[in-house]
Amino acid sequence: MILYSMPTSGNSYKVRLLLALLGRHDVQRIDVEYLTDALEQAKQQGRLPFGKAPVLVLDDGTLLPESNAILCYLGDDTRFMPQSPVARAQMLGWMFWEQNQHEGVIAVRAALRAYPHRRALATPERMAELLERGHDLLQIMEDHLATRDWLVGDHATLADLCLFAYTHSAGARGGFDMARFPAIGAWIERITQLDGFEGLE
Amino acid sequence: MILYSMPTSGNSYKVRLLLALLGRHDVQRIDVEYLTDALEQAKQQGRLPFGKAPVLVLDDGTLLPESNAILCYLGDDTRFMPQSPVARAQMLGWMFWEQNQHEGVIAVRAALRAYPHRRALATPERMAELLERGHDLLQIMEDHLATRDWLVGDHATLADLCLFAYTHSAGARGGFDMARFPAIGAWIERITQLDGFEGLE
Repeated sequence: MILYSMPTSGNSYKVRLLLALLGRHDVQRIDVEYLTDALEQAKQQGRLPFGKAPVLVLDDGTLLPESNAILCYLGDDTRFMPQSPVARAQMLGWMFWEQNQHEGVIAVRAALRAYPHRRALATPERMAELLERGHDLLQIMEDHLATRDWLVGDHATLADLCLFAYTHSAGARGGFDMARFPAIGAWIERITQLDGFEGLE
Repeated sequence: MILYSMPTSGNSYKVRLLLALLGRHDVQRIDVEYLTDALEQAKQQGRLPFGKAPVLVLDDGTLLPESNAILCYLGDDTRFMPQSPVARAQMLGWMFWEQNQHEGVIAVRAALRAYPHRRALATPERMAELLERGHDLLQIMEDHLATRDWLVGDHATLADLCLFAYTHSAGARGGFDMARFPAIGAWIERITQLDGFEGLE
């Protein structure tokens, strides 16, 4: 298998994190960073069906796009996939929420601060709106984690790895006030202590 | 089971469509339309964990939010869930893409046209940008469906029902030029001919 991975992107990091936690070293990696020839080349070769990384290429050439779908594929039948249908649905609920709400605010604000070609879009009004919306979204996670160690059930699932990717860097990269969210802070610490954990490069 | 459902919303319609196709009439429905007391009441009662409909309430009181997670829960072990792990991952890929890309453009442009309280946000620049981005996203579906009857495999899956919800009304509600996308048009027609099909009210 080959993983097309964007080194600075949380969506690609999710998949690298799961592979590290599973101790899998059988997946070749091709780095496709923003604004590089490697990314353009991968697009032109038709390796990125939705124009984005990550994409997992199976040995028969099948392309699997979308970070959370790749997590479900690689995480199936592992300790990160709950056994009960209800817990699986709850896990997927957090993962769809991440793509529909969390990523479009938390990751986007970080990207507007990080990538020079996007700075023109980072107006004071937009950055203030994203800050407020992001704090509201993080509060949903905080309230949930206030009485639980993990998002679903009593151990780490794909939902935790998925939400960790952009949440753990929301302070440093996104400028969010993480001191407001102590339960999220404890959950982040818990994830970094999982066997095999690897940080975002 | 109880389904909190927003009558005008494609996300809620997806779930109603799956229930209709499965011939299931055992799910009670509570309508929570935009800007109604019913919606505020459901929020205040803590029935909408992410503040949005749809939410499926199981008989033991467990709340399952997120339309696509509900589809996976209700569609598990039915003809709309592929058997092979690769096909399931491809199906989920389309469903995550729908929440991350398609819904935030196709559904949002329709909502900006439809709901009076959002019209102030519908500037000519924003509407033009959403139109262009939407046509690019619809082109991805068109290219894929040009050589296939269904998004994944050789019959309808949850991915088709998921993408149908906002795509079938993208012309009338969103103002997108659907004449450009004949393969999408044929696919829409195919879905409406499935046994038990019910349209969006």
